[in-house]
Amino acid sequence: MQAMSRENAGSNMHALIRELYPICRSITGGGVRETLRILREHVPLEIREVATGTQVFDWTVPREWNIRDAWIKNSAGERLVDFRRLNLHVVNYSAPIRQRMRLAELKEHLHTVPHQPDWVPYRTSYYKESWGFCLSEKQLAQFNDTDEYDVCVDSSLTDGQLSYGEYLLKGKEAENEVLISCHICHPALANDNLSGVAVTIALAQHLASTPRRYSYRFLFIPGTIGSITWLSKNEQAAKKIRHGLVLTCVGDSGNITYKRSRRGDAEIDRAFVHILEQSGEPHKIVEFSPYGYDERQYCSPGFNLPVGTMMRSPHGEFAQYHTSADNLDFVQAEALADSLAKCRDVIDVLEHNRSYINLNPYCEPQLGKRGLYEGSQDETMALLWVLNLSDGNFSLLDIAERAKMPFAAIKVAADRLGRAGLLRDV
Amino acid sequence: MQAMSRENAGSNMHALIRELYPICRSITGGGVRETLRILREHVPLEIREVATGTQVFDWTVPREWNIRDAWIKNSAGERLVDFRRLNLHVVNYSAPIRQRMRLAELKEHLHTVPHQPDWVPYRTSYYKESWGFCLSEKQLAQFNDTDEYDVCVDSSLTDGQLSYGEYLLKGKEAENEVLISCHICHPALANDNLSGVAVTIALAQHLASTPRRYSYRFLFIPGTIGSITWLSKNEQAAKKIRHGLVLTCVGDSGNITYKRSRRGDAEIDRAFVHILEQSGEPHKIVEFSPYGYDERQYCSPGFNLPVGTMMRSPHGEFAQYHTSADNLDFVQAEALADSLAKCRDVIDVLEHNRSYINLNPYCEPQLGKRGLYEGSQDETMALLWVLNLSDGNFSLLDIAERAKMPFAAIKVAADRLGRAGLLRDV
Amino acid sequence: MQAMSRENAGSNMHALIRELYPICRSITGGGVRETLRILREHVPLEIREVATGTQVFDWTVPREWNIRDAWIKNSAGERLVDFRRLNLHVVNYSAPIRQRMRLAELKEHLHTVPHQPDWVPYRTSYYKESWGFCLSEKQLAQFNDTDEYDVCVDSSLTDGQLSYGEYLLKGKEAENEVLISCHICHPALANDNLSGVAVTIALAQHLASTPRRYSYRFLFIPGTIGSITWLSKNEQAAKKIRHGLVLTCVGDSGNITYKRSRRGDAEIDRAFVHILEQSGEPHKIVEFSPYGYDERQYCSPGFNLPVGTMMRSPHGEFAQYHTSADNLDFVQAEALADSLAKCRDVIDVLEHNRSYINLNPYCEPQLGKRGLYEGSQDETMALLWVLNLSDGNFSLLDIAERAKMPFAAIKVAADRLGRAGLLRDV
Repeated sequence: MQAMSRENAGSNMHALIRELYPICRSITGGGVRETLRILREHVPLEIREVATGTQVFDWTVPREWNIRDAWIKNSAGERLVDFRRLNLHVVNYSAPIRQRMRLAELKEHLHTVPHQPDWVPYRTSYYKESWGFCLSEKQLAQFNDTDEYDVCVDSSLTDGQLSYGEYLLKGKEAENEVLISCHICHPALANDNLSGVAVTIALAQHLASTPRRYSYRFLFIPGTIGSITWLSKNEQAAKKIRHGLVLTCVGDSGNITYKRSRRGDAEIDRAFVHILEQSGEPHKIVEFSPYGYDERQYCSPGFNLPVGTMMRSPHGEFAQYHTSADNLDFVQAEALADSLAKCRDVIDVLEHNRSYINLNPYCEPQLGKRGLYEGSQDETMALLWVLNLSDGNFSLLDIAERAKMPFAAIKVAADRLGRAGLLRDV
Repeated sequence: MQAMSRENAGSNMHALIRELYPICRSITGGGVRETLRILREHVPLEIREVATGTQVFDWTVPREWNIRDAWIKNSAGERLVDFRRLNLHVVNYSAPIRQRMRLAELKEHLHTVPHQPDWVPYRTSYYKESWGFCLSEKQLAQFNDTDEYDVCVDSSLTDGQLSYGEYLLKGKEAENEVLISCHICHPALANDNLSGVAVTIALAQHLASTPRRYSYRFLFIPGTIGSITWLSKNEQAAKKIRHGLVLTCVGDSGNITYKRSRRGDAEIDRAFVHILEQSGEPHKIVEFSPYGYDERQYCSPGFNLPVGTMMRSPHGEFAQYHTSADNLDFVQAEALADSLAKCRDVIDVLEHNRSYINLNPYCEPQLGKRGLYEGSQDETMALLWVLNLSDGNFSLLDIAERAKMPFAAIKVAADRLGRAGLLRDV
Repeated sequence: MQAMSRENAGSNMHALIRELYPICRSITGGGVRETLRILREHVPLEIREVATGTQVFDWTVPREWNIRDAWIKNSAGERLVDFRRLNLHVVNYSAPIRQRMRLAELKEHLHTVPHQPDWVPYRTSYYKESWGFCLSEKQLAQFNDTDEYDVCVDSSLTDGQLSYGEYLLKGKEAENEVLISCHICHPALANDNLSGVAVTIALAQHLASTPRRYSYRFLFIPGTIGSITWLSKNEQAAKKIRHGLVLTCVGDSGNITYKRSRRGDAEIDRAFVHILEQSGEPHKIVEFSPYGYDERQYCSPGFNLPVGTMMRSPHGEFAQYHTSADNLDFVQAEALADSLAKCRDVIDVLEHNRSYINLNPYCEPQLGKRGLYEGSQDETMALLWVLNLSDGNFSLLDIAERAKMPFAAIKVAADRLGRAGLLRDV
């Protein structure tokens, strides 16, 4: 990516995040649909709807949640907590309620961030019917034991649909797919996971404009129940997945963290490690664990798909996580652009990683007479490495790792040798 | 083990060591028999007798050694060295002698610890007929070149028996045994190896009182010739040994040292490493070497049994080793209790280490609806790890290692999942 | 090697280097032939001649180059640059020329070492017809823009032969060969590679005088084209090579560097690493890379021979490399002797590395009754290690590595056990 287009890419992604931020998303309902509608302006995704009550493996698609308003008023009629100002104020999936009560009773339904007086936490109650409000410690200080409070959650939980977006971008190899998955269920939280959504959209746009070996399947799904639903309805399609990536929390200014797939040394794992190591930038590689986002489902033992997870600051390891401080200031265009660039670099590795056969395997071929000996020392070394290891047992990524050279340089060497008639595909 | 019972266990073991300490044991003879008789008061072991001259692989069961008294008197008739005060004073297996001689001649039969004026060394001469005395440097200073000395070893070397103790504790699986072996041939040495004897007895008592998957075979044998004799007479039984442990020098205050089996990564090795690492206590893991105690025989190439060795300070690496300073003060109840506790923890791993099959392998099962989502974060993680890796290829120990969690926590999670119908035995 | 003979070996090798140093070698021509003639006084090598134009894999044997004289004279007739004083002054393989020219034109054919005013570089132009001179910065300062210069290269490039030397020393196993290869194409450069030639000669003399399991094939060849030519004409013989070594830059005072074969863990690699580690001397082990000397050809993927490279300071990593400063002072008798000693030690490992079967595999044999228990503790440990691991799966080198003991000690133990009837060959 060139400097200018990288800058543009970053600001485009940030603009998309700003557009989506105010919408009150959840695992079902109008907020998700509105989000998918906006995303469809950027890539031609299909919006899938799965009816409430549908059995998806061990789970059941829940009722659809919609919300119009929610507030807590004091006896003077002042809105002390107002859903319309920040959609985090209502516990996501709250059942409808309209009631007057004292603070003592109300308190069991209030959530704050104890050590951050200005922050509002993000809470959900998907699978246990309940209601509640999230507010800052400062807001809570306005309440007192003597007053009475009017509480309203103007929501509905009704049979409906679970909505998700799916975009299949066909490549030369229809039977070999790369899965890119992001969760779209969080309301006004920017890094978790509008950042993942924005990078996925930008990646899809980029890949749509370039020749592709693999087919790419992009999923915009509610966390957990969304991936379970997709896997449940696509058991055969899941078998085509050769590599996969979950994108989450990819917009903050922290270094990149890559979490390996359950397999630990899948090609996607090795490609990501290679790109991060070759970048020379600080980064972290973490082992798979069965906690996190939708990689939990993709890497469940029945599927065991080669799906890794790209993050910057990992969920739960930054103070702003799941609070109102994960806002539009917390994600940065440059970080988004860097996350996109790394994904593109990794996909370049996957797209071009093949094994070749040196057609002149007995001693070195004479490079000079083919004009192949004129480049830099690094270019010559790349040629020699590709020739030396192209016995069919080593892929270009294997060669790049052993040569400790960038995959891109090894790829260029393989291309030059191919054009010189010294190399053929396995 | 609870605090109180641990304290009791430690003092019981120390009491047994005190009882056995004065007996003059050797590789054969009355001292061994008397020792086994006392041990039989604690566990119902069988006393085996194998006749002098019996061929056991490359070795021959030696003559039986018995001793009543031994001393060196000066011309005034004073006992300068007296077997009855400390049985280390006579070189173990000394042939009988009664003779008057000058110091010059006597000196070839005297042994001291040069840099420890108060200590008496422990010496043996099992396979070369000879006699000698061990004394402290201070005692030696009482001798002079002019006096004459009366030397007496009132011992006998006669055709007889080699005695050892064997206790088989049957478990559910008669064909799968765990071997626990300790040497009983050392006279008044507390750590080497009355400590091993005492911990073995306590372990046998504990296991006798609990349900058992494995059968346990406890051997109380003279070092080297004892294990060779047992193996020689039990070639078929040896094939049942799935795991084994030699216990030696387990009563001093040093950190635990575990020496791997010849295989290096046998289940006993991995279980011991896991327990020691999870303990958070300082410890040492050493590679197998063909030197040490009876693991030399169990791990000889023809058997290659998965037998490791547990020690605290390893033989030869503490100053008191094979001297009179390895006495009742050198072994401590708390260290004995800790050694026992570690053995019990390791056996818990072996007893419960199985592979399971996740019955809901496609995506995660919904834990919440089964009441499995209420515990601590660690408890939830343990559940997720067991579910994720229970594809039949990973044992609970594999899972504990990968999750970096205690085996016991993983075991609890597997039990809960089993009760919830989510897991079955392979 | 004893101290005296080591000293002799070193000075003999240095003397041979001094004798060969003045000869103007190249990849073909009279200088190579003269060099081989001198080497034949030391070992009975065959001189092979391969005609110009012969196709050798992807390459063609070039025309033969011979040179009588070369100089640059100023208008006063003074020889400013004189081939007869130093054969590096002419670019190796320069085409004949006789011409008068100004400095501006001449400069394109002059080469210096910019930061070393006294040093003359070494340059070649084998595969592109051209001419040139190498001189020091100080010499260049004598030239000016106004004078005219007479340039003469009295050389010839004609159809002829490529010459190399080959010496096959048969051992017990005619079908199993060890290859020792050195390049002989460099003119007045001492470390690169008269040092390699001298050590190869000394090694051949040594091996000729000792019993041998393997057959040894010594190649004295021009770099690159020589190994390609040999491999091209000996495809079947190459299949007999079990171990191989390229010797280059082995006379300077740097520490030994061993470069692994392409296989990475061939027996020669493991033997070299073992000897260097056991030496306790500083050294460096480097991974294979497809750059360097003739290992590039031996390790090309079609052959993939187990050939490593021994160097002291690696080519390109010392300032004197490919300059006139790589002279007779730069190589030292002691370094040559040490290089030879290490090669001999490694070959001792290869010659004696076998697997054995412990004939008494059930428990330890009784060493005492065979007089095997009298040695030092290290000697006893070596016996116990060999007995313990000789189940047919471990070679003596495997045992030495696991025991962390010198191979020679393990070998002695195996011999003693063999003589005692406790061990047999696999």
